[in-house]
Amino acid sequence: MAMKRAASSAVRSLLSSTASTFCRNIHVPGESKKIVGVFYKGNEYAKLNPNFVGCVEGALGIREWLESQGHQYIVTDDKEGPDSELERNLSDAHVIISTPFHPAYVTAERIKKAKNLELLLTAGIGSDHIDLKAAAAAGITVAEVTGSNVVSVAEDELLRILILIRNFLPGYHQAVNGEWNVAGIAHRAYDLEGKTVGTVGAGRIGKLLLQRLKPFNCNLLYFDRLRMDPELEKEIGAKFEEELDAMLPKCDVIVINTPLTEQTRGLFDKEKISKCKKGVLIVNNARGAIMDTQAVADACSNGHVAGYSGDVWFPQPAPKDHPWRSMPNHAMTPHISGTTIDAQLRYAAGVKDMLDRHFRGEDFPEQNYIVKEGQLASQYR
Amino acid sequence: MAMKRAASSAVRSLLSSTASTFCRNIHVPGESKKIVGVFYKGNEYAKLNPNFVGCVEGALGIREWLESQGHQYIVTDDKEGPDSELERNLSDAHVIISTPFHPAYVTAERIKKAKNLELLLTAGIGSDHIDLKAAAAAGITVAEVTGSNVVSVAEDELLRILILIRNFLPGYHQAVNGEWNVAGIAHRAYDLEGKTVGTVGAGRIGKLLLQRLKPFNCNLLYFDRLRMDPELEKEIGAKFEEELDAMLPKCDVIVINTPLTEQTRGLFDKEKISKCKKGVLIVNNARGAIMDTQAVADACSNGHVAGYSGDVWFPQPAPKDHPWRSMPNHAMTPHISGTTIDAQLRYAAGVKDMLDRHFRGEDFPEQNYIVKEGQLASQYR
Repeated sequence: MAMKRAASSAVRSLLSSTASTFCRNIHVPGESKKIVGVFYKGNEYAKLNPNFVGCVEGALGIREWLESQGHQYIVTDDKEGPDSELERNLSDAHVIISTPFHPAYVTAERIKKAKNLELLLTAGIGSDHIDLKAAAAAGITVAEVTGSNVVSVAEDELLRILILIRNFLPGYHQAVNGEWNVAGIAHRAYDLEGKTVGTVGAGRIGKLLLQRLKPFNCNLLYFDRLRMDPELEKEIGAKFEEELDAMLPKCDVIVINTPLTEQTRGLFDKEKISKCKKGVLIVNNARGAIMDTQAVADACSNGHVAGYSGDVWFPQPAPKDHPWRSMPNHAMTPHISGTTIDAQLRYAAGVKDMLDRHFRGEDFPEQNYIVKEGQLASQYR
Repeated sequence: MAMKRAASSAVRSLLSSTASTFCRNIHVPGESKKIVGVFYKGNEYAKLNPNFVGCVEGALGIREWLESQGHQYIVTDDKEGPDSELERNLSDAHVIISTPFHPAYVTAERIKKAKNLELLLTAGIGSDHIDLKAAAAAGITVAEVTGSNVVSVAEDELLRILILIRNFLPGYHQAVNGEWNVAGIAHRAYDLEGKTVGTVGAGRIGKLLLQRLKPFNCNLLYFDRLRMDPELEKEIGAKFEEELDAMLPKCDVIVINTPLTEQTRGLFDKEKISKCKKGVLIVNNARGAIMDTQAVADACSNGHVAGYSGDVWFPQPAPKDHPWRSMPNHAMTPHISGTTIDAQLRYAAGVKDMLDRHFRGEDFPEQNYIVKEGQLASQYR
């Protein structure tokens, strides 16, 4: 590994044409790299908080450090189409840093153009905006800051469960509109206590959610490929469900906590939603494309789904006429849960750490890899 | 007691003029009583949920039971002014059932008019809409359904903490308005984890909130007259603060969990708010009058308070021009947290139980009494 990464610039073209597909992340210590970061613009908000490092202006707070080491650091929000700043910098970029909150779609075509690309880093979690198979085939390493957003997203999921079950938004609208009609809120407001909450997927975020739900005295269920360690399961107090279709009709609240893969894309279509209890509440901070967009909008309109909340859409940014913006009983926001100030500081530190290791030819923390040496991480296979 | 309550209708006027002030809740088993319930109207929502018993139409679900026992049951939402249905039924009412969600103000003047009044029941918790001293002096028993709302309100407080700290509402507005500007949300969105949350008052609701906060890994503080049992304090994981003014500057989030009394009325005025950390978030589901209305609105406008959320106002219903409806960074609703469907079913059952005991001449569960035999419960003294 160390030898391979130490290959000089001069032999790079030779290597990339003759050696294995794992060889793109070659490296010469001390060599100047071109790093392209694609984030959302802060605009007037950029200066309001010194810890707001996740925006273009904040640039993860690593510009000074990168430039002091002789690297070039281009940061932009301009990512769509052939004239975008991302596209114009593709051909000689060594590293692209992207985020799920303003996803720079790194397609097979773009990977082909990016001849020097060694490393794709996700500032945050969730790398499905990258064509992982194409990246693997091209020998590019893909990594994210695993763990940087898990607490943020789990907290946000509990927020959304409470917003829906307690029917917060109609009350807020009344307050703003000068109204006072308790019945208009109370007739469909419930306590969370005593309800059945099921998570589809119980990875790190799902587990943190279940832990936060425990004092609410709910009936907690989880569906996943693997059952938790019995000790942990007992501590968390959730019951394992072997079959998704067996869990769905039991749940008053369903939370999606599974990555977007070929298996989960469009999983919640009309048929799957019809298996849920009438009046179910659904929270999805995972990925928008796990749901069939129109099926969700229809189920909210006909009342089968009594409330839907999440911060993920397909595509992102959501178009102005995305049906989830106007369907009844939604509590949607733009993609935000994993980019709190606290999360930004965590993923900025994680990106800096991985860049530093990359420059030194060192491995990343194992759990950060999404594509390593041509292999996809297990959750993306 | 049993003897006193068994006094016949014939001797009532004698008793009430000559005996002690504790004698109004006299009773003859089997006698027909007039019960007046004052609730909010359900209108078009009344029929949408068979468990929606808290509205006028739902009438706590006790009409059939009361009438089958020969009692008269008047239910109305009409409570203001001399021509209101409440006022017109005062003179011969034996029992008035009111709720904090649509408070029938039972003043000294009204108590004077209600010559037959024996019992004031609060369907829910919080009897400060009743002139308790006047009720005590007139020998009227006042009781509420202690415990019926505690889970509901504690859940709702945690909801409001999360709404404010994670900056939910600007994101929701973007979703509805066809916008996508992550920076506009993220620059002031935080995780709850690691923040300092202090409750002013740690009675039943405060304790339930602290228990629900525990898995969020916050720094938890509480101010109260009495320190908790050390075992409980350790289990809950909150630190006791002897002085309110010492706790306030430490808190990122302050939650009000104290009843409205002469000591707490207007407690959070301009001076008290100035002792809080700049950027503090305040949640108040206790009573609106604990805050100085204008001081809160001013502090939200100048940014000293970064967010304010609650479901209590003074007065209630809040007038259309109440400043909290339009102040920046609020997440207000009408008075709702203790009247979820679950809470309604609990307080309806509690009211029925107390009426049943009253008709039988039996005592109530001790913790339900607010005024008993001329004495106010300790928290209202």
